[in-house]
Amino acid sequence: MKKIAVFTSGGDSPGMNACVRSVVRTGIYKGLEVYGIYRGYEGMIEGDIKRMYSHSVSNIVQRGGTILKSARSMEFKTPEGRKQAYENLKAHGIEGIVAIGGDGTFTGAKIFQEEFGIPTVGCPGTIDNDLYGTDFTIGFDTAVNTALEAIDKIRDTAAAHDRIFFIEVMGRDAGFIAVESGIGGGAEFVMVPETKTDLNKVVKSLRNIRANKSSSIVVVAEGDEEGNAETIMQKVKDKIQDPEKDFKVTTLGHIQRGGNPTAHDRLLGSLCGMAAVEGLIDGRTNCMAGIMDQKVVYTPFGDCIGKEKPLNELHLKLIDILSI
Amino acid sequence: MKKIAVFTSGGDSPGMNACVRSVVRTGIYKGLEVYGIYRGYEGMIEGDIKRMYSHSVSNIVQRGGTILKSARSMEFKTPEGRKQAYENLKAHGIEGIVAIGGDGTFTGAKIFQEEFGIPTVGCPGTIDNDLYGTDFTIGFDTAVNTALEAIDKIRDTAAAHDRIFFIEVMGRDAGFIAVESGIGGGAEFVMVPETKTDLNKVVKSLRNIRANKSSSIVVVAEGDEEGNAETIMQKVKDKIQDPEKDFKVTTLGHIQRGGNPTAHDRLLGSLCGMAAVEGLIDGRTNCMAGIMDQKVVYTPFGDCIGKEKPLNELHLKLIDILSI
Amino acid sequence: MKKIAVFTSGGDSPGMNACVRSVVRTGIYKGLEVYGIYRGYEGMIEGDIKRMYSHSVSNIVQRGGTILKSARSMEFKTPEGRKQAYENLKAHGIEGIVAIGGDGTFTGAKIFQEEFGIPTVGCPGTIDNDLYGTDFTIGFDTAVNTALEAIDKIRDTAAAHDRIFFIEVMGRDAGFIAVESGIGGGAEFVMVPETKTDLNKVVKSLRNIRANKSSSIVVVAEGDEEGNAETIMQKVKDKIQDPEKDFKVTTLGHIQRGGNPTAHDRLLGSLCGMAAVEGLIDGRTNCMAGIMDQKVVYTPFGDCIGKEKPLNELHLKLIDILSI
Amino acid sequence: MKKIAVFTSGGDSPGMNACVRSVVRTGIYKGLEVYGIYRGYEGMIEGDIKRMYSHSVSNIVQRGGTILKSARSMEFKTPEGRKQAYENLKAHGIEGIVAIGGDGTFTGAKIFQEEFGIPTVGCPGTIDNDLYGTDFTIGFDTAVNTALEAIDKIRDTAAAHDRIFFIEVMGRDAGFIAVESGIGGGAEFVMVPETKTDLNKVVKSLRNIRANKSSSIVVVAEGDEEGNAETIMQKVKDKIQDPEKDFKVTTLGHIQRGGNPTAHDRLLGSLCGMAAVEGLIDGRTNCMAGIMDQKVVYTPFGDCIGKEKPLNELHLKLIDILSI
Repeated sequence: MKKIAVFTSGGDSPGMNACVRSVVRTGIYKGLEVYGIYRGYEGMIEGDIKRMYSHSVSNIVQRGGTILKSARSMEFKTPEGRKQAYENLKAHGIEGIVAIGGDGTFTGAKIFQEEFGIPTVGCPGTIDNDLYGTDFTIGFDTAVNTALEAIDKIRDTAAAHDRIFFIEVMGRDAGFIAVESGIGGGAEFVMVPETKTDLNKVVKSLRNIRANKSSSIVVVAEGDEEGNAETIMQKVKDKIQDPEKDFKVTTLGHIQRGGNPTAHDRLLGSLCGMAAVEGLIDGRTNCMAGIMDQKVVYTPFGDCIGKEKPLNELHLKLIDILSI
Repeated sequence: MKKIAVFTSGGDSPGMNACVRSVVRTGIYKGLEVYGIYRGYEGMIEGDIKRMYSHSVSNIVQRGGTILKSARSMEFKTPEGRKQAYENLKAHGIEGIVAIGGDGTFTGAKIFQEEFGIPTVGCPGTIDNDLYGTDFTIGFDTAVNTALEAIDKIRDTAAAHDRIFFIEVMGRDAGFIAVESGIGGGAEFVMVPETKTDLNKVVKSLRNIRANKSSSIVVVAEGDEEGNAETIMQKVKDKIQDPEKDFKVTTLGHIQRGGNPTAHDRLLGSLCGMAAVEGLIDGRTNCMAGIMDQKVVYTPFGDCIGKEKPLNELHLKLIDILSI
Repeated sequence: MKKIAVFTSGGDSPGMNACVRSVVRTGIYKGLEVYGIYRGYEGMIEGDIKRMYSHSVSNIVQRGGTILKSARSMEFKTPEGRKQAYENLKAHGIEGIVAIGGDGTFTGAKIFQEEFGIPTVGCPGTIDNDLYGTDFTIGFDTAVNTALEAIDKIRDTAAAHDRIFFIEVMGRDAGFIAVESGIGGGAEFVMVPETKTDLNKVVKSLRNIRANKSSSIVVVAEGDEEGNAETIMQKVKDKIQDPEKDFKVTTLGHIQRGGNPTAHDRLLGSLCGMAAVEGLIDGRTNCMAGIMDQKVVYTPFGDCIGKEKPLNELHLKLIDILSI
Repeated sequence: MKKIAVFTSGGDSPGMNACVRSVVRTGIYKGLEVYGIYRGYEGMIEGDIKRMYSHSVSNIVQRGGTILKSARSMEFKTPEGRKQAYENLKAHGIEGIVAIGGDGTFTGAKIFQEEFGIPTVGCPGTIDNDLYGTDFTIGFDTAVNTALEAIDKIRDTAAAHDRIFFIEVMGRDAGFIAVESGIGGGAEFVMVPETKTDLNKVVKSLRNIRANKSSSIVVVAEGDEEGNAETIMQKVKDKIQDPEKDFKVTTLGHIQRGGNPTAHDRLLGSLCGMAAVEGLIDGRTNCMAGIMDQKVVYTPFGDCIGKEKPLNELHLKLIDILSI
């Protein structure tokens, strides 16, 4: 193997730059030429591919976003699009690919690898932490801390006014961000897609809240089966029927994707990037390089996408205990 | 004067605690007894009043929110409510009041002072910076920095995806937060209630945006006459008619009220608190203690509420120049 | 078991409050009475012990330091001191203890437990991450992120002046903070007690640094065998003999112990606190409740103190690769 | 005027990049060509000068340090060096200069302007706030907030251990950083070069500290006449003679120069940059563009350097009152 390429795709996440940097420098360290593909599959089709050097990735480890940019590509879903992408890679002599992204990215990578045979190893770059095959995804820790800082700020104002806040965090299918930011933020309730939300229990608890409790925080994952934070707040408000209670909703939104990555995400991005390049050199393909129990683990793309990653039962138990 | 009381009212703002601390310690330093009234006018009516000591305000200078809590009081708008409040203060022997809050707070304080004659000096505690008689209000600097940090995070993800973001910041009647966070955040446009928003100019500019510009940020004050961020984004999107452009909206919401106060707000809160107590001792009443050009200035409540505080023309000019 | 007590001891670490809160609420949830012992072993001897309720630990999960305070106790090292401590606990009817701290704390707890038989479970509260029996200690993640933010700031000024910075982080016997902050901070070299520091290699590398490299960061654990950052900088400077090179030293110091805990440390503190109480109820003693591979693990105090916890080989490898 | 150049010099400060961006874009907006000189006077002598475009300064407003880099130049102190610098500027057709820096920078600019006549306007870029002719210097607000965050962290650990901390902040000749971070950080004492430090008063106060006070913070400007923080701590310790008291020293060092600039410094840098370019176009020279009372003020370099800027008396008074 002489030449490899790296790209980022799907929603960006903090730590992607640390991962790109690690892929580039590990590749060079191992004697490879490394190329960057810009704007994911879109740039692969358009041939937006550039040689990368050690200095190309200087001073990026601390930055959010991705210097390779990201985009969603409709064309890559067509055989013609993928053919074009393959031709471009062949023209550059690319013999291996590192794909940084989430399940959409890996779904594309799997098909492409099976059609054209260029060895491909993935890195788990998504804030949602919903990929099987790695304890954490790159960007998750930063997103949780960003959500937590926002909850801390809201608690200040909630406590000053004796208010009940419903805070919506990201997580369409997975409640990891909600659970960890909810525990850290001292939330009374955390509502996630993975578990049945019992609104009557919430109503009962908020109604009987103890006198010296000055505020209540409810964290809602955007994909909860009872609706988003606004919807759930309205349902609860309608049931509580207490004009004295002051309800507010805040949706954290896109700030959760940005920001300087935490130490954890820089380290994780760096580890996965190194492991992906080493995996390619060792002949691996069609799999993701993740970190489990602080060790490198390679998991087939099919499992990463297809297998469920459950919430930690200990965390769910904690929420119940700590909100008393 | 032997006994004074302090309270916070209206929307809370970071630095209120620094102000309360300064009122308490300046009072004690000057030989007074100081009392804290909890939950603003509500607590004044209910008699929720406690003696405060130097240690009562230890370790709060760095905290958001207000240890005295805040509330909105319907009852204080009635003569009976105010009578009750007066009786409670009289019972405690309170001879002077420091009222920390915004224009609603001062409107109440003015009436109450005129009806019952207890000398009252205000401190400008609101994130909106919309009070005449002080260069800045307590909490404004923190709110701007909080908005700015959020914009920085969003720029990361905007740049990664070549997106156009409409970010809504607080400011129902005043655009100060929008202007300062917009300049600091490198926004293309800032839309505020004080100036006419020309959507056609925005549309033209966003359509012709230069090729190497990777993202665009538009900051919208919630009270802009064209609507909130969501409404304005839809209008712009409808006019641009370009399916390639990716529009997103983020509403920052209540995180702007909380958080540890900046150095500026701790200092400003401390200065205003000291000045308010000194003002009371010097026989001042019915006025606000503000800081203009780094000096203490006392302005009648009537002017604080009634006179307009315009945006700085230099700032508006800057936005035009810097977005080229 | 009806009554348990909790205390913090040794150097404080961010997340200790989350741990105390979890011990108190888990205890109450399980039907126990919970007492707080102030200032560690010192307060145990002096009888500084108070009942704690759910609201006693409200609004502390986000705070650095420890509400129970900490102290070093000479007297507890004497049999008389420990006897007095035991009498005080007996007088309160304490039947179980949760000890939050590092190896000094556990050494004391082990002796005390063996002498007087009160069941004791520990929680790993130290920023150094040097305890066997848990993947991470409570406070470590916050300390690493604090160090990293400092390195990020220093890199700004280092790059502006083409300087070489030696940054000293905490770690008398363990290089965990140095390694993780060094990787995340893009350091050229990381010097730790666990590995032999080769100054000649450093000198050679810094001398031949590539032209487009604008700055260099060297992270030094305070306990490195070549000396502290100042000493090492002088040695390197003397060997390089290049007046053009501008060397600077910064010692981060005590800021690494404070600050709001990260999401990770709040979660870890909460988990360990819950596990410690459950351990006591289940009859465990003389052991620490840690988290390994996201599961609760109880490890005898003797092993926590006595067994070595090595640095992760993957991390050391990363440093070599990423600094090219 | 057709062509102008901009450079940064001396110690870097956060907000310099915002200032450079504003100079470049204001210049282009006004129809000028703008050039960047790298590494201050050093690059002027070496001819390290490049054309700058609007996109050259994209995405830098939020970054610490300076993209134009900074350096100290011995050669510029010689007539030959300045002659060479002049030749290089002439060769590029530069007709006006914006010099961003502190008093060293302005001293050089004054001589150079007087010798060769190229119109020069300065911008106050230094964290020390020690320049006459502007209420604040670019970078000061960020440095104060950085110092304050460090003090907040140290207070956590100081309170946990009942310790007395001496914290050294930057300020060789000026106590502005010490005073504002000291007030914001709730310091007991602030020691600055401008006022006589009375150690006996400090000793007396620390000895009699009230029982419920858990920690004490003393902020020391590095240039205090009694010595640096370490020296002062030793003197105080020797006088107090109380083995129970636990003294610690932390020197914040270079972290105070870096970090993302605050909203205030981004705005101030932007305003000064705009004003400097407008000043050049209006025929001004040999002066600094500062902001006083929120308006642009041009002050002769001679006054900026020569006139004293006193500390605000209100702030000194506050420290006395608030530490009771």
